Amino acid sequence: MQTEIVLYTYFRSSCSWRVRIALALKGIEYESRPVNLIKDGGEQHAAEYKTLNPQEQVPTLVWDGIVLTQSMAIMVYIDDMKPDPPLLPIDPVKKAQALALAELINSGIQPLQNLHVLQKVGEDKKMEWAQFWINKGLTAFEKMLKDTAGKYCVGDSITLADICLVPQVYNAHRFNVDLGQFPLIQKIAAALENHEAFKAADALVQPDCPEDLRKK
Amino acid sequence: MQTEIVLYTYFRSSCSWRVRIALALKGIEYESRPVNLIKDGGEQHAAEYKTLNPQEQVPTLVWDGIVLTQSMAIMVYIDDMKPDPPLLPIDPVKKAQALALAELINSGIQPLQNLHVLQKVGEDKKMEWAQFWINKGLTAFEKMLKDTAGKYCVGDSITLADICLVPQVYNAHRFNVDLGQFPLIQKIAAALENHEAFKAADALVQPDCPEDLRKK
Repeated sequence: MQTEIVLYTYFRSSCSWRVRIALALKGIEYESRPVNLIKDGGEQHAAEYKTLNPQEQVPTLVWDGIVLTQSMAIMVYIDDMKPDPPLLPIDPVKKAQALALAELINSGIQPLQNLHVLQKVGEDKKMEWAQFWINKGLTAFEKMLKDTAGKYCVGDSITLADICLVPQVYNAHRFNVDLGQFPLIQKIAAALENHEAFKAADALVQPDCPEDLRKK
Repeated sequence: MQTEIVLYTYFRSSCSWRVRIALALKGIEYESRPVNLIKDGGEQHAAEYKTLNPQEQVPTLVWDGIVLTQSMAIMVYIDDMKPDPPLLPIDPVKKAQALALAELINSGIQPLQNLHVLQKVGEDKKMEWAQFWINKGLTAFEKMLKDTAGKYCVGDSITLADICLVPQVYNAHRFNVDLGQFPLIQKIAAALENHEAFKAADALVQPDCPEDLRKK
Protein backbone atom coordinates (compact mmCIF):
# COMPACT_ATOMS: atom_id res chain seq x y z
CA MET A 1 0.00 0.00 0.00
CA GLN A 2 1.20 3.47 -0.87
CA THR A 3 2.12 5.62 2.15
CA GLU A 4 -0.06 8.73 2.27
CA ILE A 5 1.86 11.79 3.42
CA VAL A 6 0.37 15.26 3.79
CA LEU A 7 2.38 18.34 4.77
CA TYR A 8 0.61 21.41 6.13
CA THR A 9 2.99 24.16 5.11
CA TYR A 10 3.46 27.87 4.45
CA PHE A 11 5.98 28.85 1.79
CA ARG A 12 7.96 31.27 3.97
CA SER A 13 7.78 29.38 7.29
CA SER A 14 11.34 28.31 8.21
CA CYS A 15 10.10 25.23 10.00
CA SER A 16 7.91 24.07 7.10
CA TRP A 17 10.85 24.72 4.79
CA ARG A 18 13.10 22.44 6.87
CA VAL A 19 10.62 19.57 6.57
CA ARG A 20 10.28 20.16 2.82
CA ILE A 21 14.08 19.85 2.50
CA ALA A 22 14.14 16.64 4.56
CA LEU A 23 11.37 15.09 2.45
CA ALA A 24 13.12 16.12 -0.77
CA LEU A 25 16.49 14.72 0.41
CA LYS A 26 14.81 11.39 1.09
CA GLY A 27 12.92 11.43 -2.22
CA ILE A 28 9.59 11.15 -0.40
CA GLU A 29 6.52 12.31 -2.31
CA TYR A 30 3.84 14.16 -0.38
CA GLU A 31 0.76 16.27 -0.80
CA SER A 32 1.28 19.91 0.10
CA ARG A 33 -1.59 21.69 1.90
CA PRO A 34 -0.86 25.41 2.27
CA VAL A 35 -1.86 27.13 5.51
CA ASN A 36 -1.81 30.89 4.99
CA LEU A 37 -0.33 32.41 8.16
CA ILE A 38 -1.36 35.96 7.20
CA LYS A 39 -4.78 35.77 5.52
CA ASP A 40 -7.83 36.50 7.74
CA GLY A 41 -5.62 36.66 10.85
CA GLY A 42 -3.98 33.33 10.04
CA GLU A 43 -5.49 30.03 8.90
CA GLN A 44 -3.36 28.25 11.55
CA HIS A 45 -5.87 29.52 14.14
CA ALA A 46 -8.90 27.95 12.37
CA ALA A 47 -10.82 25.43 14.50
CA GLU A 48 -10.12 22.48 12.19
CA TYR A 49 -6.38 23.12 12.04
CA LYS A 50 -6.12 23.66 15.82
CA THR A 51 -7.48 20.15 16.35
CA LEU A 52 -4.63 18.83 14.23
CA ASN A 53 -1.96 21.09 15.74
CA PRO A 54 -2.78 22.62 19.17
CA GLN A 55 0.32 24.83 18.81
CA GLU A 56 -1.45 26.59 15.89
CA GLN A 57 1.76 26.54 13.89
CA VAL A 58 3.06 25.00 10.72
CA PRO A 59 4.34 22.50 9.82
CA THR A 60 2.17 19.51 10.60
CA LEU A 61 3.02 16.27 8.85
CA VAL A 62 0.38 13.56 8.59
CA TRP A 63 2.07 10.25 7.76
CA ASP A 64 -0.45 7.47 7.13
CA GLY A 65 -2.84 9.08 9.62
CA ILE A 66 -0.16 9.76 12.26
CA VAL A 67 -0.09 13.45 13.14
CA LEU A 68 3.39 14.89 13.75
CA THR A 69 4.34 18.39 14.89
CA GLN A 70 7.57 20.34 15.60
CA SER A 71 10.02 20.37 12.70
CA MET A 72 12.90 18.75 14.61
CA ALA A 73 10.70 15.87 15.78
CA ILE A 74 9.18 15.47 12.31
CA MET A 75 12.62 15.26 10.69
CA VAL A 76 13.79 12.63 13.19
CA TYR A 77 10.64 10.63 12.40
CA ILE A 78 11.29 10.90 8.66
CA ASP A 79 14.87 9.75 9.30
CA ASP A 80 13.61 6.77 11.34
CA MET A 81 11.08 5.73 8.69
CA LYS A 82 13.44 6.16 5.73
CA PRO A 83 17.04 6.11 7.00
CA ASP A 84 18.72 6.72 3.65
CA PRO A 85 20.36 9.20 3.21
CA PRO A 86 20.82 9.86 6.95
CA LEU A 87 20.08 13.36 8.29
CA LEU A 88 22.57 12.97 11.15
CA PRO A 89 26.12 11.55 11.31
CA ILE A 90 26.54 8.11 12.91
CA ASP A 91 29.55 9.22 14.98
CA PRO A 92 28.13 10.48 18.31
CA VAL A 93 30.42 13.54 18.48
CA LYS A 94 29.63 14.68 14.94
CA LYS A 95 25.96 13.94 15.58
CA ALA A 96 26.03 16.13 18.72
CA GLN A 97 27.77 18.89 16.74
CA ALA A 98 25.14 18.76 13.99
CA LEU A 99 22.34 18.82 16.56
CA ALA A 100 23.94 21.69 18.47
CA LEU A 101 24.18 23.77 15.30
CA ALA A 102 20.61 22.88 14.33
CA GLU A 103 19.39 23.78 17.83
CA LEU A 104 21.31 27.04 17.83
CA ILE A 105 18.96 28.06 15.02
CA ASN A 106 15.89 26.06 16.05
CA SER A 107 15.83 27.27 19.66
CA GLY A 108 18.28 30.18 19.59
CA ILE A 109 17.27 32.28 16.59
CA GLN A 110 14.09 31.21 14.82
CA PRO A 111 11.75 31.40 17.87
CA LEU A 112 12.81 35.02 18.40
CA GLN A 113 12.04 36.19 14.89
CA ASN A 114 8.97 34.22 13.96
CA LEU A 115 5.77 35.93 12.89
CA HIS A 116 3.90 35.82 16.20
CA VAL A 117 6.85 37.13 18.24
CA LEU A 118 7.44 40.00 15.81
CA GLN A 119 3.74 40.92 15.97
CA LYS A 120 4.08 41.04 19.76
CA VAL A 121 7.29 43.12 19.60
CA GLY A 122 5.47 45.68 17.44
CA GLU A 123 5.87 47.18 13.99
CA ASP A 124 8.26 49.98 15.01
CA LYS A 125 10.72 47.74 16.85
CA LYS A 126 10.56 44.47 14.96
CA MET A 127 13.38 45.09 12.47
CA GLU A 128 15.97 45.99 15.14
CA TRP A 129 14.78 43.09 17.32
CA ALA A 130 15.06 40.49 14.54
CA GLN A 131 18.45 41.81 13.41
CA PHE A 132 19.81 41.65 16.96
CA TRP A 133 18.95 37.97 17.49
CA ILE A 134 19.91 36.85 14.00
CA ASN A 135 23.28 38.62 14.29
CA LYS A 136 23.94 37.19 17.72
CA GLY A 137 23.01 33.66 16.70
CA LEU A 138 24.83 33.59 13.38
CA THR A 139 27.97 35.04 15.00
CA ALA A 140 28.07 32.01 17.33
CA PHE A 141 27.17 29.67 14.44
CA GLU A 142 30.07 30.97 12.34
CA LYS A 143 32.51 30.45 15.24
CA MET A 144 31.29 26.89 15.79
CA LEU A 145 31.64 26.10 12.08
CA LYS A 146 35.40 26.68 12.34
CA ASP A 147 35.60 23.40 14.29
CA THR A 148 33.06 21.37 12.35
CA ALA A 149 32.68 22.50 8.73
CA GLY A 150 33.72 20.68 5.59
CA LYS A 151 31.76 21.15 2.40
CA TYR A 152 28.71 21.44 4.67
CA CYS A 153 28.19 22.44 8.32
CA VAL A 154 29.57 19.18 9.76
CA GLY A 155 32.00 17.53 7.39
CA ASP A 156 30.97 16.70 3.85
CA SER A 157 27.50 15.25 4.37
CA ILE A 158 24.26 17.16 4.71
CA THR A 159 22.80 17.14 8.23
CA LEU A 160 19.98 18.81 10.16
CA ALA A 161 22.36 21.75 10.70
CA ASP A 162 22.38 22.49 6.96
CA ILE A 163 18.63 22.00 6.74
CA CYS A 164 18.10 24.60 9.48
CA LEU A 165 20.72 26.97 8.06
CA VAL A 166 19.20 27.63 4.63
CA PRO A 167 15.83 29.08 5.77
CA GLN A 168 17.68 31.07 8.45
CA VAL A 169 19.96 32.61 5.82
CA TYR A 170 16.86 33.58 3.83
CA ASN A 171 15.51 35.32 6.94
CA ALA A 172 18.85 37.05 7.53
CA HIS A 173 18.58 38.53 4.02
CA ARG A 174 14.96 39.44 4.63
CA PHE A 175 15.89 41.40 7.77
CA ASN A 176 18.91 43.05 6.11
CA VAL A 177 21.54 41.29 8.21
CA ASP A 178 25.00 41.68 6.63
CA LEU A 179 26.11 38.14 5.79
CA GLY A 180 29.54 39.40 4.70
CA GLN A 181 30.55 38.92 8.36
CA PHE A 182 29.99 35.19 8.04
CA PRO A 183 32.18 33.75 5.26
CA LEU A 184 31.76 30.09 6.24
CA ILE A 185 27.99 30.42 6.45
CA GLN A 186 27.95 32.11 3.05
CA LYS A 187 30.12 29.42 1.46
CA ILE A 188 28.04 26.56 2.84
CA ALA A 189 24.73 28.25 2.00
CA ALA A 190 25.93 28.75 -1.58
CA ALA A 191 26.82 25.04 -1.89
CA LEU A 192 23.43 24.03 -0.46
CA GLU A 193 21.47 26.33 -2.73
CA ASN A 194 22.77 24.38 -5.73
CA HIS A 195 21.56 21.06 -4.34
CA GLU A 196 18.45 19.68 -6.07
CA ALA A 197 16.59 18.89 -2.81
CA PHE A 198 17.17 22.41 -1.51
CA LYS A 199 16.03 23.89 -4.83
CA ALA A 200 12.80 21.88 -4.72
CA ALA A 201 12.09 22.96 -1.11
CA ASP A 202 12.82 26.67 -1.65
CA ALA A 203 10.15 29.02 -0.32
CA LEU A 204 10.03 30.93 -3.57
CA VAL A 205 9.06 27.98 -5.77
CA GLN A 206 6.24 26.66 -3.56
CA PRO A 207 2.68 26.55 -4.91
CA ASP A 208 1.53 29.05 -2.25
CA CYS A 209 4.29 31.59 -2.96
CA PRO A 210 2.68 34.78 -4.28
CA GLU A 211 3.38 35.51 -7.95
CA ASP A 212 5.40 38.70 -7.29
CA LEU A 213 7.91 36.90 -5.02
CA ARG A 214 8.21 33.76 -7.11
CA LYS A 215 11.63 32.66 -8.44
CA LYS A 216 11.73 32.80 -12.22
CA MET B 1 40.38 5.00 32.57
CA GLN B 2 37.75 7.04 34.37
CA THR B 3 35.71 9.32 32.12
CA GLU B 4 36.12 12.96 33.14
CA ILE B 5 32.90 14.93 32.83
CA VAL B 6 32.53 18.61 33.65
CA LEU B 7 29.23 20.49 33.50
CA TYR B 8 29.23 24.29 33.29
CA THR B 9 25.91 25.12 34.89
CA TYR B 10 23.80 27.75 36.62
CA PHE B 11 21.34 26.58 39.24
CA ARG B 12 18.29 28.29 37.76
CA SER B 13 19.09 27.84 34.06
CA SER B 14 16.40 25.55 32.58
CA CYS B 15 18.78 24.13 30.02
CA SER B 16 21.50 23.32 32.61
CA TRP B 17 18.79 21.77 34.76
CA ARG B 18 17.72 19.46 31.92
CA VAL B 19 21.27 18.17 31.52
CA ARG B 20 21.60 17.66 35.28
CA ILE B 21 18.44 15.51 35.19
CA ALA B 22 19.74 13.46 32.24
CA LEU B 23 23.07 12.84 34.00
CA ALA B 24 21.31 11.88 37.23
CA LEU B 25 18.91 9.50 35.41
CA LYS B 26 21.91 7.74 33.88
CA GLY B 27 23.79 7.67 37.18
CA ILE B 28 26.71 9.57 35.62
CA GLU B 29 29.01 11.39 38.04
CA TYR B 30 30.34 14.76 37.00
CA GLU B 31 32.08 17.85 38.28
CA SER B 32 29.82 20.90 38.48
CA ARG B 33 31.37 24.28 37.56
CA PRO B 34 28.94 27.11 38.28
CA VAL B 35 28.73 30.00 35.80
CA ASN B 36 26.94 32.91 37.45
CA LEU B 37 24.67 34.44 34.78
CA ILE B 38 23.98 37.56 36.86
CA LYS B 39 27.20 38.51 38.65
CA ASP B 40 29.36 41.23 37.01
CA GLY B 41 27.09 41.29 33.94
CA GLY B 42 27.30 37.51 33.58
CA GLU B 43 30.26 35.14 33.75
CA GLN B 44 29.04 33.48 30.55
CA HIS B 45 30.43 36.50 28.66
CA ALA B 46 33.96 36.08 30.10
CA ALA B 47 36.66 35.56 27.46
CA GLU B 48 37.65 32.09 28.68
CA TYR B 49 34.08 30.81 28.74
CA LYS B 50 33.29 32.29 25.30
CA THR B 51 36.09 30.19 23.83
CA LEU B 52 34.37 27.10 25.21
CA ASN B 53 30.85 28.17 24.26
CA PRO B 54 30.58 30.87 21.55
CA GLN B 55 26.86 31.12 22.32
CA GLU B 56 27.79 32.52 25.76
CA GLN B 57 25.16 30.35 27.39
CA VAL B 58 25.01 27.49 29.84
CA PRO B 59 25.14 24.54 29.82
CA THR B 60 28.40 23.35 28.33
CA LEU B 61 29.32 19.72 28.95
CA VAL B 62 32.94 18.66 28.57
CA TRP B 63 33.10 14.87 28.21
CA ASP B 64 36.67 13.59 28.14
CA GLY B 65 37.79 16.80 26.48
CA ILE B 66 34.92 16.89 23.97
CA VAL B 67 33.04 20.18 24.25
CA LEU B 68 29.27 19.91 23.83
CA THR B 69 26.69 22.70 23.75
CA GLN B 70 22.89 23.01 23.43
CA SER B 71 20.95 20.98 25.98
CA MET B 72 19.03 18.86 23.46
CA ALA B 73 22.24 17.89 21.64
CA ILE B 74 24.03 17.20 24.93
CA MET B 75 21.24 14.91 26.13
CA VAL B 76 21.24 12.95 22.87
CA TYR B 77 25.03 12.54 23.24
CA ILE B 78 24.64 11.30 26.83
CA ASP B 79 21.98 8.87 25.58
CA ASP B 80 24.33 7.63 22.83
CA MET B 81 27.26 7.15 25.23
CA LYS B 82 25.22 5.49 27.97
CA PRO B 83 21.99 4.14 26.48
CA ASP B 84 20.48 2.80 29.71
CA PRO B 85 17.90 3.95 30.76
CA PRO B 86 16.88 5.43 27.37
CA LEU B 87 15.79 9.07 27.23
CA LEU B 88 13.56 8.45 24.19
CA PRO B 89 11.10 5.65 23.33
CA ILE B 90 12.22 3.10 20.73
CA ASP B 91 8.89 3.22 18.88
CA PRO B 92 9.28 5.95 16.21
CA VAL B 93 5.81 7.45 16.80
CA LYS B 94 6.23 7.67 20.57
CA LYS B 95 9.76 9.00 20.03
CA ALA B 96 8.42 11.74 17.71
CA GLN B 97 5.75 12.59 20.30
CA ALA B 98 8.34 12.88 23.08
CA LEU B 99 10.57 15.04 20.88
CA ALA B 100 7.65 17.25 19.81
CA LEU B 101 6.70 17.88 23.45
CA ALA B 102 10.33 18.54 24.38
CA GLU B 103 10.70 20.93 21.43
CA LEU B 104 7.47 22.71 22.27
CA ILE B 105 9.28 23.81 25.44
CA ASN B 106 12.83 23.93 24.09
CA SER B 107 12.03 26.05 21.04
CA GLY B 108 8.50 27.28 21.79
CA ILE B 109 8.64 28.58 25.36
CA GLN B 110 12.08 28.65 26.97
CA PRO B 111 13.80 30.84 24.32
CA LEU B 112 11.12 33.50 24.83
CA GLN B 113 11.50 33.76 28.58
CA ASN B 114 15.21 33.31 29.11
CA LEU B 115 17.29 35.91 30.91
CA HIS B 116 18.72 37.71 27.87
CA VAL B 117 15.35 38.01 26.10
CA LEU B 118 13.66 39.37 29.23
CA GLN B 119 16.46 41.94 29.64
CA LYS B 120 15.80 43.02 26.05
CA VAL B 121 12.01 43.16 26.59
CA GLY B 122 12.56 45.49 29.56
CA GLU B 123 11.77 45.49 33.27
CA ASP B 124 8.27 46.96 32.94
CA LYS B 125 7.03 44.52 30.32
CA LYS B 126 8.87 41.31 31.14
CA MET B 127 6.30 39.75 33.49
CA GLU B 128 3.40 40.09 31.02
CA TRP B 129 5.65 38.89 28.15
CA ALA B 130 6.84 35.77 29.99
CA GLN B 131 3.34 34.91 31.19
CA PHE B 132 1.95 35.22 27.67
CA TRP B 133 4.40 32.75 26.10
CA ILE B 134 4.37 30.30 29.01
CA ASN B 135 0.56 30.25 29.02
CA LYS B 136 0.37 29.81 25.27
CA GLY B 137 2.94 27.02 25.24
CA LEU B 138 1.64 25.09 28.21
CA THR B 139 -1.94 25.29 26.86
CA ALA B 140 -0.78 23.45 23.72
CA PHE B 141 1.37 21.07 25.82
CA GLU B 142 -1.64 20.12 27.98
CA LYS B 143 -3.76 19.43 24.87
CA MET B 144 -1.06 17.23 23.37
CA LEU B 145 -0.68 15.28 26.62
CA LYS B 146 -4.29 14.07 26.24
CA ASP B 147 -3.08 11.85 23.38
CA THR B 148 0.27 10.79 24.81
CA ALA B 149 0.36 10.79 28.62
CA GLY B 150 0.56 7.84 30.96
CA LYS B 151 2.29 8.18 34.27
CA TYR B 152 4.66 10.57 32.47
CA CYS B 153 4.37 12.74 29.33
CA VAL B 154 4.59 9.83 26.87
CA GLY B 155 3.42 6.61 28.42
CA ASP B 156 4.98 5.32 31.61
CA SER B 157 8.68 5.93 30.95
CA ILE B 158 10.61 9.13 31.48
CA THR B 159 11.61 10.89 28.23
CA LEU B 160 13.15 14.19 27.13
CA ALA B 161 9.62 15.65 27.33
CA ASP B 162 9.55 15.12 31.12
CA ILE B 163 13.09 16.43 31.46
CA CYS B 164 12.11 19.66 29.69
CA LEU B 165 8.81 19.94 31.57
CA VAL B 166 10.10 20.16 35.14
CA PRO B 167 12.28 23.31 34.78
CA GLN B 168 9.51 24.90 32.69
CA VAL B 169 6.97 24.28 35.47
CA TYR B 170 9.40 25.95 37.90
CA ASN B 171 9.50 28.96 35.59
CA ALA B 172 5.72 28.99 35.29
CA HIS B 173 5.52 29.29 39.10
CA ARG B 174 8.22 31.94 39.07
CA PHE B 175 6.23 34.07 36.62
CA ASN B 176 2.93 33.49 38.46
CA VAL B 177 1.28 31.42 35.73
CA ASP B 178 -1.80 29.63 37.06
CA LEU B 179 -1.04 25.92 36.69
CA GLY B 180 -4.56 25.01 37.82
CA GLN B 181 -5.51 25.26 34.13
CA PHE B 182 -3.22 22.33 33.35
CA PRO B 183 -4.25 19.26 35.39
CA LEU B 184 -2.23 16.74 33.37
CA ILE B 185 0.92 18.86 33.57
CA GLN B 186 0.42 19.24 37.31
CA LYS B 187 -0.10 15.50 37.82
CA ILE B 188 2.99 14.54 35.81
CA ALA B 189 5.16 17.25 37.38
CA ALA B 190 4.15 16.00 40.84
CA ALA B 191 5.15 12.43 39.93
CA LEU B 192 8.49 13.63 38.54
CA GLU B 193 9.30 15.77 41.56
CA ASN B 194 9.31 12.61 43.69
CA HIS B 195 11.84 10.87 41.47
CA GLU B 196 15.36 10.68 42.93
CA ALA B 197 17.12 11.91 39.75
CA PHE B 198 14.83 14.93 39.53
CA LYS B 199 15.39 15.69 43.21
CA ALA B 200 19.17 15.61 42.75
CA ALA B 201 19.00 17.91 39.73
CA ASP B 202 16.63 20.47 41.30
CA ALA B 203 17.76 24.09 40.96
CA LEU B 204 17.22 24.74 44.64
CA VAL B 205 19.64 22.08 45.90
CA GLN B 206 22.58 23.00 43.63
CA PRO B 207 25.85 24.19 45.16
CA ASP B 208 25.48 27.59 43.48
CA CYS B 209 21.91 28.17 44.71
CA PRO B 210 21.91 31.16 47.07
CA GLU B 211 21.21 30.31 50.71
CA ASP B 212 17.89 32.19 50.89
CA LEU B 213 16.37 30.22 47.99
CA ARG B 214 17.75 26.84 48.99
CA LYS B 215 15.38 23.91 49.65
CA LYS B 216 15.54 22.80 53.24
